[in-house]
Amino acid sequence: MFAVKGTFFDTPSPDALRMREGYLVVDNGRIRCFCETLPLELRCIEVLDYTGKMIVPGMSDLHLHASQYRYTGTAMDVALIDWLSNYAYPEEARYADPDYAARLYGAFTQDLLHTSTTRSCIFATIHTDATLILQDLLEQSGMVAYVGKLNIDRNSPDYYREASPEAGMAETIRWILTSRSRGYQYALPMITPRFTPSVTDEYMRRLGEAAAEYGLPMQSHISENTDEIAWVKALCPDTSYYYETYSRYGLFGGTTPTVMAHCIYSSPEECRVMKEQNVFIAHCPTSNENVIAGIAPAAMYLREGYHVGLGSDIAGGHTLNLFAVMAAAVQMSKLRWKFLSSDYAPLSIIEAFYMATVGGGRFFGKVGLFEPGYEFDAAVLNEPVNHSVIDLRPEERLEIYAYRGDGKAEAKFVSGRKIL
Amino acid sequence: MFAVKGTFFDTPSPDALRMREGYLVVDNGRIRCFCETLPLELRCIEVLDYTGKMIVPGMSDLHLHASQYRYTGTAMDVALIDWLSNYAYPEEARYADPDYAARLYGAFTQDLLHTSTTRSCIFATIHTDATLILQDLLEQSGMVAYVGKLNIDRNSPDYYREASPEAGMAETIRWILTSRSRGYQYALPMITPRFTPSVTDEYMRRLGEAAAEYGLPMQSHISENTDEIAWVKALCPDTSYYYETYSRYGLFGGTTPTVMAHCIYSSPEECRVMKEQNVFIAHCPTSNENVIAGIAPAAMYLREGYHVGLGSDIAGGHTLNLFAVMAAAVQMSKLRWKFLSSDYAPLSIIEAFYMATVGGGRFFGKVGLFEPGYEFDAAVLNEPVNHSVIDLRPEERLEIYAYRGDGKAEAKFVSGRKIL
Repeated sequence: MFAVKGTFFDTPSPDALRMREGYLVVDNGRIRCFCETLPLELRCIEVLDYTGKMIVPGMSDLHLHASQYRYTGTAMDVALIDWLSNYAYPEEARYADPDYAARLYGAFTQDLLHTSTTRSCIFATIHTDATLILQDLLEQSGMVAYVGKLNIDRNSPDYYREASPEAGMAETIRWILTSRSRGYQYALPMITPRFTPSVTDEYMRRLGEAAAEYGLPMQSHISENTDEIAWVKALCPDTSYYYETYSRYGLFGGTTPTVMAHCIYSSPEECRVMKEQNVFIAHCPTSNENVIAGIAPAAMYLREGYHVGLGSDIAGGHTLNLFAVMAAAVQMSKLRWKFLSSDYAPLSIIEAFYMATVGGGRFFGKVGLFEPGYEFDAAVLNEPVNHSVIDLRPEERLEIYAYRGDGKAEAKFVSGRKIL
Repeated sequence: MFAVKGTFFDTPSPDALRMREGYLVVDNGRIRCFCETLPLELRCIEVLDYTGKMIVPGMSDLHLHASQYRYTGTAMDVALIDWLSNYAYPEEARYADPDYAARLYGAFTQDLLHTSTTRSCIFATIHTDATLILQDLLEQSGMVAYVGKLNIDRNSPDYYREASPEAGMAETIRWILTSRSRGYQYALPMITPRFTPSVTDEYMRRLGEAAAEYGLPMQSHISENTDEIAWVKALCPDTSYYYETYSRYGLFGGTTPTVMAHCIYSSPEECRVMKEQNVFIAHCPTSNENVIAGIAPAAMYLREGYHVGLGSDIAGGHTLNLFAVMAAAVQMSKLRWKFLSSDYAPLSIIEAFYMATVGGGRFFGKVGLFEPGYEFDAAVLNEPVNHSVIDLRPEERLEIYAYRGDGKAEAKFVSGRKIL
């Protein structure tokens, strides 16, 4: 048992920011209580003193491509087709080399460690060994992550495609079993068909069986742009909606916890099933502003009770800093409201903070709030302004950090473990 | 005479990034030559060694409100009318207090000093004494700036408006003469009517006379949103175009060097006159994404030969970091292209860099390039990635800095003077 002292920010509901100064008592990885002063019976426990510092719940990054880390923040002014053929595919193919994987995933893991993110859902590449290297690195870091070896057996260059569903499944099973035998506690496997255009029906069917057999969650992309939706319809003529290409194989929520990235153009029927099946939506606003496929209706998702969190979506997104992603969520929702659809008022920064903490955290259990019983995930931050010169209200402290903070945690906790 | 050693990035033309490793020789504030190795006759001069560091031309910020610095990065989710009445006006009114001005302008100047910006065009407030305090602080910093005491005699709250054109002119003349008597070399006065809705015709007329009499440049806002344009038309029924409310008093380029912020909805006729009169356009993309009045046709302005630079426009913009503004310029041009008008392909990061350096620098003379004869304005930067792990091409180094760099200069030069 120990206590952390500081200024705690969290969101008990999507429209309510709470700021409390005092002590959070942590017992066996979970929050026991908050108190303004430590009661007598707790005076002997260790206190980690961050007086005056902003402390936020550890954030959950629901969608990112670790294998695109090298060029994150570049290639932002090339068209999508060039981006895929000149950047994404050649770069991901380099992870066939374990040395390259160790070097780049090492840099990625270190950089992620220094953000406010404590949990994430990660796309790796088709390479089993490189994916296991990433899991080793994440496991050592102490962060919690679901990691996906990708499945791709169509519609990518020959040099970056699995030969057949059989060959792909053999590697996928080897990867799952090796993950088990290594006894990972934090870096767990997640079934990851890249997206329907990359995966034949037969391969998708087998992935659904594997998810059920091994009790694994799944992640993929859906309805990011209109051309993609038409393409999926042509590839799978026996489906009426994009989501069916996943759901018919048990890969769309329900008993298989699912994260779907983007959901920009999901039809009402797709939305209905997402909600009913508790599919988590990874809203990726920095990707929206860079890839310009569209702007997801994130305010609608949040206010209508969908499960929605944020994703950095590197390298479509340009930063791992989820505070910057929060700011982009507000900006993109304003642009959507102004230019595309005025159905829902723009997101507030408090709602964006809720998505980054509670919204995504829920995928990992009781994560994202400073409430008794929740896992103690937290990041201690250095604010970008001097409070002796500049007076700010609590919501202004949060907002200014989102827009101007460096996103670098001074200290970080996951399930009560201090990992930074 | 001295030399600076490092890796120099600049843009001899809007579509060409140049990266050179070697020495830049500086003589009497101006660049004498670039050389890969120092020739024999220069071996004895002092060398400031930044080997391996990225060095960029000092950037020019053509539009910012220093008096809104306190809340920069906040109030991003309130509507414009609330933003003005609850943030901008009350905050600017606080600068009636010289102690407040000294404290806040001090923080602003320090923060600006640590960016890559060496020159700027700044809006202060209506208060003469506070504006002079800002000029004192800027002058001491060594940065070059045009600073404007604002002129406002209508359409703002009673507590933040000048009583009459006569009263406003008396203060304006006192401010100009005091600026002269203090002998500022770097922090120079610039006539600054807030914008037409804030300034009566009579006051505007007198400001035009003052600009001519004292040989001062001017800055203001124009055509930021459609409601504003309609309002100006109603306020000045004897004009056909917004620009005429400035030009008829000699405040729109020509012999009065002029910067106009925004130019989002400038009509073809307004554009024609801007170009003909060499009016500089301050493109403010972060403001575009926050205030969502619209997205300026910056790619058109640049490619059609207008004078166009970047403005941080704090606090409509959320950061003084012009690299972040460059990234936003690319993002906003992509969103404009996708959703509003496909007339001009989106800006490249190189074009955005050109606007931040050469485009805005031209307002200050030969500034913004590492060419012989140009003033030596430069910022030395720490890149966000480790080049021993991550291999990048020159344009990727620039782009990754724009999207992921912290924008903090390690060293900075203005006209050959090392000020940081």
